[in-house]
Formats: sequence, structure tokens, C-alpha cells
Amino acid sequence: MQTLPYDPSRLAQCAAEIVAATRELAALGWTPATSSNFSLRLDDRHAAITVSGRDKGRLGADDVMVVDFQGQPVATAHRPSAETLLHTQLYARFPEVGCVLHTHSRVQTVASRLFAGRGHVRLEGYELLKAFAGNQTHEMAIDVPVLANTQDMPALAAQVETLLDAQCLWGYLIDGHGLYAWGRDMAQARRHLDAFEFLFACELDLRTLRQ
Amino acid sequence: MQTLPYDPSRLAQCAAEIVAATRELAALGWTPATSSNFSLRLDDRHAAITVSGRDKGRLGADDVMVVDFQGQPVATAHRPSAETLLHTQLYARFPEVGCVLHTHSRVQTVASRLFAGRGHVRLEGYELLKAFAGNQTHEMAIDVPVLANTQDMPALAAQVETLLDAQCLWGYLIDGHGLYAWGRDMAQARRHLDAFEFLFACELDLRTLRQ
Amino acid sequence: MQTLPYDPSRLAQCAAEIVAATRELAALGWTPATSSNFSLRLDDRHAAITVSGRDKGRLGADDVMVVDFQGQPVATAHRPSAETLLHTQLYARFPEVGCVLHTHSRVQTVASRLFAGRGHVRLEGYELLKAFAGNQTHEMAIDVPVLANTQDMPALAAQVETLLDAQCLWGYLIDGHGLYAWGRDMAQARRHLDAFEFLFACELDLRTLRQ
Amino acid sequence: MQTLPYDPSRLAQCAAEIVAATRELAALGWTPATSSNFSLRLDDRHAAITVSGRDKGRLGADDVMVVDFQGQPVATAHRPSAETLLHTQLYARFPEVGCVLHTHSRVQTVASRLFAGRGHVRLEGYELLKAFAGNQTHEMAIDVPVLANTQDMPALAAQVETLLDAQCLWGYLIDGHGLYAWGRDMAQARRHLDAFEFLFACELDLRTLRQ
Repeated sequence: MQTLPYDPSRLAQCAAEIVAATRELAALGWTPATSSNFSLRLDDRHAAITVSGRDKGRLGADDVMVVDFQGQPVATAHRPSAETLLHTQLYARFPEVGCVLHTHSRVQTVASRLFAGRGHVRLEGYELLKAFAGNQTHEMAIDVPVLANTQDMPALAAQVETLLDAQCLWGYLIDGHGLYAWGRDMAQARRHLDAFEFLFACELDLRTLRQ
Repeated sequence: MQTLPYDPSRLAQCAAEIVAATRELAALGWTPATSSNFSLRLDDRHAAITVSGRDKGRLGADDVMVVDFQGQPVATAHRPSAETLLHTQLYARFPEVGCVLHTHSRVQTVASRLFAGRGHVRLEGYELLKAFAGNQTHEMAIDVPVLANTQDMPALAAQVETLLDAQCLWGYLIDGHGLYAWGRDMAQARRHLDAFEFLFACELDLRTLRQ
Repeated sequence: MQTLPYDPSRLAQCAAEIVAATRELAALGWTPATSSNFSLRLDDRHAAITVSGRDKGRLGADDVMVVDFQGQPVATAHRPSAETLLHTQLYARFPEVGCVLHTHSRVQTVASRLFAGRGHVRLEGYELLKAFAGNQTHEMAIDVPVLANTQDMPALAAQVETLLDAQCLWGYLIDGHGLYAWGRDMAQARRHLDAFEFLFACELDLRTLRQ
Repeated sequence: MQTLPYDPSRLAQCAAEIVAATRELAALGWTPATSSNFSLRLDDRHAAITVSGRDKGRLGADDVMVVDFQGQPVATAHRPSAETLLHTQLYARFPEVGCVLHTHSRVQTVASRLFAGRGHVRLEGYELLKAFAGNQTHEMAIDVPVLANTQDMPALAAQVETLLDAQCLWGYLIDGHGLYAWGRDMAQARRHLDAFEFLFACELDLRTLRQ
């Protein structure tokens, strides 16, 4: 008898989409050593998210679980990642957010450490700034926040809420850790993720070249 | 009843060639976040060009449209990219140009920003300069122009016309944006694109190493 | 008549697992020019290990041999690598070690030379430190030893024993040579290997960027 | 009627081996913009070599031709590359040389320009020096010559002869151009090529890191 509080066919579809994207991101080297987490909104109370600690290059549909927007597991014995709350707070706050991607690329990690003291990475004057939803020109700057890392997820989530109160964001870095990026759906979240990775890489290169 | 002002079988052939090349360039990471545009000459009044805003790693034949040499869409509801004019001005001016490739690699973007102040990137003494059509020796230098970026495409196209009046060019950079390269056909345009990417990368490496 | 001192079906299984992992690591460029060696524990007296000098991108099951924990070949005409002893000393000492991976990536080699004078690479404050078995937080530092290179394997093995007496280790570098990393099984050893590679790469980038 | 001065079945075998290796090297990005040439010894008077100017990522068996040891085409209308003489001089001089590989990687090109003034790249103390045939230890140094580039191939070949008179070589660089590496057969030549690429890359990284 079906008593699941979510639509299992919607879960199957989300899981397939998450598995495909995860394998692509793993192949790029952005999920080293079983790190990183990916999620999609299931409905207005649930999200599908990768199970903690799996090798992201070998992910299967069974490695995707359901959580509610408080980050608690739903109808599963799987343990969600400690970082699940950083995904679900976005779904809870923004009805238009459909996908959250958290990666650990070398460029993201290095940028986070280099700019942690300043508290943000400034991205300015790049054509690719138009990749972020709503932007129409390169003649602008955005400051991507760099948060201090902590193992206290509620504290980190509270800092993110404060940031979200203050500005429009497409993503943020955590120092020595990685990037959170999101969007309306997987395609838009991927576009934002790709744009952040590319622009951080350019900033690192230019900093080396201009020393 | 067939009333198309171009040969649809020629379009099908061009679309297949564009899709194949686009997927290769996407796999190299030169088209981040749905950026970049690729085109082939259809005939003496039309070009086939990628539709704006698609993920270049997942491009299909339906993502290629027809424009005239003023950059206007022909027999299609698709919206051409704002940058279409930078493709079609080359077809209109040079009957021998058959292919235009516009990419956004990390190396191209970083080189454009680093050398924007000087207005060009000098490439000198490399064997690979022989990859540019007409060159027979490495004992030469070429200055690849770096144009300021603008969202005003007619203004940008006018600056390109002025450059083309003054010198033989195989391509140019736009600051913070990317590279335009062209050739007789896809193979030659790819050879020029590959040579620019390689030589810009060498110049960036040497600049870091010689600091 | 079966007189092998090990279980041949267990060997077949280990060989398949080694071949799969080796090809993945070769594709990453971490085994240049026939270098590198990979092994799995067969039982409490034997290990399966790659034969010396093969191209790791073309490895087959026949390129995996059996050695005892003194590094001597068992029931085979194959010659083990000179470095076999550095694998088997770990199996002999730690019953819980099931897999040893030795690679020669560019990042590992450069890090080993850069930090040889100091005798270790310090990794501190990274979220990915949690990838090493037993770690629960990023708020820590580990010092990965860098040993001087020598062609005298018993001497090198003795130095490793001294290190292992003094501290908990997941791996070590040899100057100008490469990395040894290990774990409970292939998955854990790979996780440790990936984490070392990633963190060394970040350290090298940050050192360049902070000059 | 068979009047070919070489064994056509041996040519077919060599062409297949060259095509396979060429595609692998192209996939690594070491043959940008139709550059690079690869050859195998056919017999004591002939070599099989890639035709000039082809895209190395799309090479087929028809893109391999036969030349004699003076670099002249044999029983073919194909034009050999101008650099053919740099291949055949090695086959003519050393009966034990069976394969010559000429690539243009970014690392090779940058190293050649950086060290052209000094006339060589010194490689010292690396374990991977043992990849060069005959070496038994890392406790040594080799100086890889960097020749000035010229379009005058007989002059370049004469300089190479002078180098070969003076020392044991596994390869040399040409400034702004690329690397020649060779060996007994394809496997050994590839091992030498891979070792040069890896060691040059380490030297460039260390130079940047130690600035």
C-alpha cells in the first residue's frame, strides 16, 4: 500500500537526473574523495539528495534519498549528509529554487582559501556574468561571499540566511571547503556552477599573472 | 510547398557539421555556461548558426538556425544570438570565409583581460604560426587585436570592420569575453582556433615563468 | 592438482579490481612512463601486485602477480618491482590494511621536491581532511612525511617503519618519486589517494598565488 | 604485379600502430592544429611516416606514407613533411632505433622557449629518469638539448648529427617548436616521450613555485 508522503515516480525522475549530473561533475574532478552533494526539489515539502560518503563517479539511483526541508530523512534508512540543511534551507526559503549543487573543485577550494580573509571573491567585467539569471550585461560586479567553515551546520545555515536577507545570490563559498550554487532547475544550477568555476579560475590565473 | 530561400539539404549538412564540432569544443571546456556560437556559410546570402543560450555539450541539429548576412533570422522562430552580426559581417565581407567560431576558453578570457590595456597579444617566433593560412615560417610576429567588450553589437562590428581594413586577420579577442576565429571551412577555422588557444596558453605560461 | 599456497579465485578477483583501478589512475596521468604499482591483500601471508614495468593504461589480469610479505614472488616467473617491499611491509604490520597504491602524479612529484627540505607537507584546515579515515573535522593539521629517495629498498622500508612507529599515517611521499597511500580496501585507499592529490594541488596553487 | 621495394603487410601493420598512437597523443592535446609527425622503421631502408598537415585526431591508415632514409617519398604521390629528414637521420644512423615521435605539447613548447638561451633543460634527481633506456638510478642528471628553430631542415639535421656524435640522447627540443623522442619500438619511444613531458612539466612547475 502506497503511503509515501511524496510521489515515487517524481523521485525516480529526480534520481536519474541527479545521477547523470553527478557523474558528469565527478568526471570533471569536482567531487574528490566522495565529497560533494547534489539535490533537486521533489515538491513543496521534500527534496531528493545524494546519500553521504559515496564515490560520486559511481553513483546509482539507490544513492539518492528523500529529506524534508528541515533536513530530516523521509521513509528511508539512509543517513543524510550533515550538509543537507544547506540545501533544504534554500528550498524552504525560495519556492523558485529547484536545484542545489555543492562541489569541491580545486579552483573553488583554492579561491575560498585565498579570499577568505576578504570575505568575498569579486567578479567584475566578464561577459560570462550574463550567465547568472537576470544579468543583461558584463558592466557590473558581483561579490561571491566566502563563509568561514564550521562543522556546526545550524550555525552555518544561520549565516547563510543573513547573507540571503542582504543580497541577491546565485551561490557562495565556504573556506577550505567548496561552493554552493543553485537555480530554477538542474540546467540553470549547472549554468551557474559552470560560470562560478570558470570565473574563479580566471581570477586565480590573473592574480598569478599580475603578481 | 518548398519556398525556403536556401537549400535545406545544405542546411542539414551544415547543422550536422556544426553539432559535431560544437560537442568537441564543449568537451574541451571552451564553451562554459551555454556561451559561444558557431556558424558555417550556407550560400552567398545565408549562414547556419547555433541558437543562443543552449548548452553546447548537448547541442542537436534543431539548435542550428539560418540567418542572413545582416544577422536576421530566416524562416525560423528561433532568436539568433546578439553576437550573430560578428559572424555575418565576415561572410558578407570575405567570399572565401566559410566558417566562424566564437569560443570562451579560460586561456582566451585570461589573455584578453591581461592584454586588453596593450590592445593586442603578440605571438612571435613559434613554429605553430605556420598553422595560420598563408604563413610559411616561424620567423614572424602577429598581433592579435583585443577589442573592448560592449553589449552594442553594431558598434563592435564597426570596430572589427576598421581592423579588417587595416590588416590581414585570422581572429581577434574581445576583453573579458572570448575569441573569434575563422577560415575557409570548418577544418581551417578549427586549425586557426586551436593555434590561437595553444599560442595564448604558451604566452601566459611564459609570462608567469619569466616574472 | 592444486598446490598453490593462496586461493586462485581470490587472486582473480583481486587482479580484476587492480586492473580496473590501474586503468582509471593511468587515464588521470598519475602513472607516467610505466611507473607506479598497485596491490591488494590476498590473505594473511600474500598480496597481489602489479608486475614491474608495464604500461599501466594497458594492464591486463596477467600483469598482476603474487608476492609474500617479504616481497618475494610466489608460484610465478614474474619479477616483482623493486618497490614491492614498501607494499608488503604495510600488510605485514597492519592486519587492517587491505590495499596499497603507489602513484607518480605531477602534483605529487612536484610537492615532494618542493617540501623535501622541510621533510613534510603540512595540510591544515581543509574540509577534505575528513576524507582520511577517523577524522571528524577540518580543524586539524596533518604532516605528510617526505622521505629522501634511494634505490636501496630495505633502507627505505626501515625509514618507513620508524615513521609508522611514531605516528598515524595514511600515506607518505618520496622525494622526486611519488606517493604511497593505503586503506582498508580499494575504495578507502582510493579515497585517501584522491584526497592527498587534491590537497597537495591546493597547497601548490596557494603557494604560487601567495608569492 | 608486386614491385614495391618494401613489404606492404609490414606497412599495414606499422600504419595501424601509428594511427592508434597518433590518436592517443592527439587526445592528450600534444598535436595542436595539424602539427606533429610520427614514424616507425619499416626495414633497413624505409620508414612509415604520417603525411604532412593532417588533423592528428582524425588520422587514418591512408595518412601514413613510406619514405627512404634520405626522406624521399617511395611509391606514393603523398608529400612528406619537411621534417621527415629529422626522423630518417635517426633510422639511418642507429639500426636499433625503431620509432621516432615528434610532438608539440604546451609544456614542450614552453620549456623549449624558456631554456633556449641556456641551450638545454637539465633533468636531475627524478625517479622517472629510470624510464630512459639504460638508466638504473635517479642519482644522475641529463641535459636535453634545445636547438634553435629553422625552416632549413638539412641544417637542423646537421646540428642533430653533431649532438649525436657527442652524447647519448633519447630526445631533443627545438625552440618554439616541440620535442623529438625515439626508441627501439613504439612502446619504448612512448615511454621516453611520456617521461620527457612529465619531467619538463615538473621543472616548469618548480620554477614557478620557487620564484
